[in-house]
Parts: sequence; structure tokens; C-alpha cells
Amino acid sequence: MGATPHLRLDTDILDRNIAAMAALAAERGIALRPHAKTHKSLQIARRQLDAGASGLTVATIGEAEVFAAAGFDDLFIAYPLWLGAGDADRLRALAGRARVLVGCDSPEAARRLSRLPVEVAVEIDSGHHRSGVQPREAGELAARISESGLRVRGVFTFPGHSYSPETRLRAADDEAAALAVAAASLAAALLPVRLLSGGSTPSAGAVRPGVLNELRPGVYVFGDSQQVELGTIGFDQVALTVAATVVSHTGGRVVTDAGSKALGADRAPWASGFGRVLDAPDARIVALSEHHSTIEWPGARPALGSTVLVVPNHVCNAVNLAGEYRLSTGGTWPVAARGRNS
Amino acid sequence: MGATPHLRLDTDILDRNIAAMAALAAERGIALRPHAKTHKSLQIARRQLDAGASGLTVATIGEAEVFAAAGFDDLFIAYPLWLGAGDADRLRALAGRARVLVGCDSPEAARRLSRLPVEVAVEIDSGHHRSGVQPREAGELAARISESGLRVRGVFTFPGHSYSPETRLRAADDEAAALAVAAASLAAALLPVRLLSGGSTPSAGAVRPGVLNELRPGVYVFGDSQQVELGTIGFDQVALTVAATVVSHTGGRVVTDAGSKALGADRAPWASGFGRVLDAPDARIVALSEHHSTIEWPGARPALGSTVLVVPNHVCNAVNLAGEYRLSTGGTWPVAARGRNS
Repeated sequence: MGATPHLRLDTDILDRNIAAMAALAAERGIALRPHAKTHKSLQIARRQLDAGASGLTVATIGEAEVFAAAGFDDLFIAYPLWLGAGDADRLRALAGRARVLVGCDSPEAARRLSRLPVEVAVEIDSGHHRSGVQPREAGELAARISESGLRVRGVFTFPGHSYSPETRLRAADDEAAALAVAAASLAAALLPVRLLSGGSTPSAGAVRPGVLNELRPGVYVFGDSQQVELGTIGFDQVALTVAATVVSHTGGRVVTDAGSKALGADRAPWASGFGRVLDAPDARIVALSEHHSTIEWPGARPALGSTVLVVPNHVCNAVNLAGEYRLSTGGTWPVAARGRNS
Repeated sequence: MGATPHLRLDTDILDRNIAAMAALAAERGIALRPHAKTHKSLQIARRQLDAGASGLTVATIGEAEVFAAAGFDDLFIAYPLWLGAGDADRLRALAGRARVLVGCDSPEAARRLSRLPVEVAVEIDSGHHRSGVQPREAGELAARISESGLRVRGVFTFPGHSYSPETRLRAADDEAAALAVAAASLAAALLPVRLLSGGSTPSAGAVRPGVLNELRPGVYVFGDSQQVELGTIGFDQVALTVAATVVSHTGGRVVTDAGSKALGADRAPWASGFGRVLDAPDARIVALSEHHSTIEWPGARPALGSTVLVVPNHVCNAVNLAGEYRLSTGGTWPVAARGRNS
């Protein structure tokens, strides 16, 4: 397997995951704009577009720059951007290569965007309580953004409360209701509503045709332990693992060399541990250090020196820790936008 | 402040932290071998040696390679290494540049090290229950390692249960007791014990003169929210923060652009949140996404667009997410060993 820990990507499962989400969106008549922060990979983004995606979602100007430089020409920075020194010039350069949409949730941020050749989407809060205005306030904010000379394409939300066993199933309904209220609010302000964008991997399957016209899931390409434990997918849909070596057997435990610097340290309150082990569903990662995962492993333990495939809790953070994917078919792909946080 | 998020290093506080730990070790007659996995920086390692450190500790062969290439010639890979394909050649090359010590906790791992020009330290478990044999078993393992033709320098442990409010103060005593038992076990096997190595940032202050002859703390150079909340340090000893921009104010919260891809996702069960805010001790980071930290901020909130300095929970993982330090004095230092996980 080569030096561990490293990212191992099963490209057959990847292709199946890309095709399945594309089919789901097509069946429901919804455009698919996958979030590229998950994979940060030109090769995977290309496969998503080849399967019918309408464009890409990114989180930062830096990610947008990487994809625009590679020819991706329709980008949504789905984030309430606050332009710092130099950022206006960066957005202008980006807009020379791609159609650029950016998120906004305040008049103050909108003022800093004015006179730039980008469109704006108003962010609303559909229950995750992170950024975004209340849905009924979307029209007023959109009107103020329009006064800044910017074109408002519509509204977007991230139903992040889908990342909880209690609220996963209701998140898609909350999202639809919030987007409907926001759309009415824009209409009351006499503004056109061309975009109603939502979506997350845990909620995508519950989205009904009719309200949303765009979905932005990210994690679905790879899957991860959070998706397995939320019930979104089975282990057979996990395309990305961290290959690890068993380095210690003391105390009846299994310790591997994949720690938080390879897996990320994410652990939701409802997670069973710090990740899972592929092909060992009863094993539990009970502790994580930077270079150790400590696993309680019922039954016969893997031998010292053997390779185990660990499924990270949150695959986006695991990918961002590595320079490349090692493919099940041989070869590698770079994590092209790794670390592009700004 | 330039594009956020980025690492901001106060070099005055850094120098004070380096001097204070050097003084503590010197007073107690203990050699200091700081763990370089925290900073991964040639400039900081040089300052540690200039202040009297006897050498460096690292976690991986890859980290050792970065420091050896820069002239650091006394390196301890304090990890139960399992040599994979090519690793023997890498260790041989390393040993041509530096005196190399590696950790071991099994006869199987020792066999793969045999005939290499390195010394070995036996890892023991002093209460953290990660890797390492029981202290009374150290002599037997050391004898078997010696039979492989390797020279055993002594024993080492990581008292990682110092990272808990309940066990922090007792961890140094557990460590001393475990090392004393291990030393007796080696003596009973008629093996010399030249090294008794331990230490962590939370336990270092409680180490008494007499048993240990080497300390390997890492985090002390920077400090972090875990150390503040454990009571190891005050905020005035925090040298490293993540500079973040306030991007959203909706819902009465403060949202910044420093998320888990800048801070790391570490959150111990006893932590008050996902990090702390410098100069705002009552603020709490109640939620973390990849590019958002959501902060409950009593009193007057910082304005949209203002810069706040976030103190990561676990600084080692935050540093590994960035390419460089921005210094309070101007200029930058690279995170030279970033991502060297193997």
C-alpha cells in the first residue's frame, strides 16, 4: 500500500456516487452544483460536470481561483464574503474567467461588492443557525443589495441541521419552507427570483420536486463515517478511506498510525467514535492523537504491520490534510485546492 | 492583517515560553528535547536549541528528514515505528546526518529495525493507555530488542492523561512511578538505563527532580485553549492565534471565517467550546464548520469586517493546516514539516 497514512480512493464507488446524485437531481428537475470543498480536485470536478452538474460550488475565493484557472467557468462562492484588501481585484480577475456568484447576508458586505462584475445570492437561515438572514427578511436585504448596483440572482441556504440524527429528516422540509418564504419576500419587493438553492448530503434524498431549483451537496462523492452513522449511506458507498498501519497491540487494543493529522479531529456528539473501520463494523475508534488512532476491536485483531482502511468522520477535513489521492486503479490525483482557506 | 484566516505568531511571547521551559528543565537537572511536531518550524527549533535543548523530538520519519536536512543532528522519533517498504533505507540515510533514536513497543517492530544504525527506546504506558508496554515488562522487551543487535538507550513514556482536568496533576507522579518501575525492570535484565524520558506540557511543571532525565513537551512554545482551560497557562502566555474576520452578525451571533480547516476540529469533552478568543474571555465558540466559527459573544460584539484573534483548542493541528506563520514583527516563517505524516 506504500507509506501510511494516505488517502485511498476507490474510483468505481466514486463514479457510482457521482452518477447516483446526478440521477436524483435530474429526476426531481433540480440543477446540481456540487460543493468542491469536499474533494478540492480538478479530476473529480470534471467527472461531476461530465455527469451533468451545472457548475461548481466553492467556499473561498482561493478555491474559486484554482478551479477557474483549470477552466471551470461557472462558480458559486456560497459564503457570506467579506472583502478584505486585494479581494476586489481577485474577484475581478475571477470574473474574467468564469461566471461568478457570491453569497451575502448583510448590506455592509454588499457595499464592498458593489461595482464588481459578480452576481449575488442572499443567504438565509433555514434552521442551522450559522450565517444567513431570516427568510422573511430576504426581500429587504435583496432590495438593498440591488441598490448597490448588484444583480441578485436569488437566495440560498445550507440546511446544516441535517447533520444530526434528530433533525436530519426534517431538514429538507425546513429548507423548502424557508426558501418558499424567502421567495415570497423577494417577490413582494418586486425582485425576480431565479435561484432557490439548498442542499446537503444528508438531506438531498428527502428533497421534493417543486421549490428548490439547485442542490449543493458535497460529501456524497466520497461518503464518510458521519453519513454512515446518520443513515444516509451504507459502508458500500464509502469511496474514500485513510490507509493505516497497525503499529501497536499493547493493552489489548489496536493502534494505527492514522491520527488527527490524517483523519481530522471531527467528532459530533452523536458519533460512535473518531471514525470507523471499513470491513470491521464492530470496531470503534475510542481515542485519537495526532499520529495514533486507538481502536477497540472485538474478535481477532489485525496483525502488527497490517493495513486497515479507516473511514474518517468528516471526509472534507481528512482530504484537506493530504497532498494527493492514491487511486484504487493505480496513479494519483492531487488535492489541488488544499489549504486554500482565503 | 492580510487575508484571513492565517496564523499569527507573537515572537516575544514565543521567546518567553521557550526560555521558561528551558529554565524549568535546567533547574530540575533534566535534559529538554522539545517535540517539534507542534511547530514543524526550523526557525523555532533553532531557538529551542539555542536556549539549551539537547535535541529534538519528532513523530515521523518524514519530520525527522526535514529537520535533519536542515542540520539538526540529534533526533528522537518518539513513536512505535513499524517500518514499511523503503523505510529502512530512509532511516539509514537519516542516520548518516544525525544521531537517531526510535521508539519501539514490540519484538516484531524491533526485528524490522535490526541491523539499522539507530538506537532504540522502549515505550511504556504510564496511564494514557495508548501505545507502550507495561512498565514491569520493559526489561523483557529491552532484552529481546538487544538480541536483535540493537542498542537500547532506555525507556520513554507520554503521560497523555495530563490532558484532563481530573488527572492532570497526578500524571507527573504516574509517569515518575512508571519510569522507576521500568528502570528497575531493565536493571534486573542487566541492561544499562541511560534514558528515562517523559513529559508533556500540562505535566511538565509538576515533574520533580530525580527520576526523569529527559522532558519532551511540545505545545508550550505556543500555548492553546486546551492549556488555558486545563490551567497550565494564562492567556498572556498564548503566542499563536488564528487571525479571523467577522463575516456575519445574523441571529445575534458573531461568525468568523476561521473554521475547522484553520483551527482544527479538536474538542475534548471538558473543553468549553471549539477554541477561545484572545481579549474576549467570556466569548464561547459554540459551533464550528469548515469555514465558519459561530461565537456567542456577551456584551458589545466586534463589527462586521473586524479582525479577532482565535486561540485554537489544540495548536499542533492548527499549525499543520497552514503553510506559514505571520510574525508579529513582520515577515513569515514556513511550516516546513507540514503534512509530513509518514
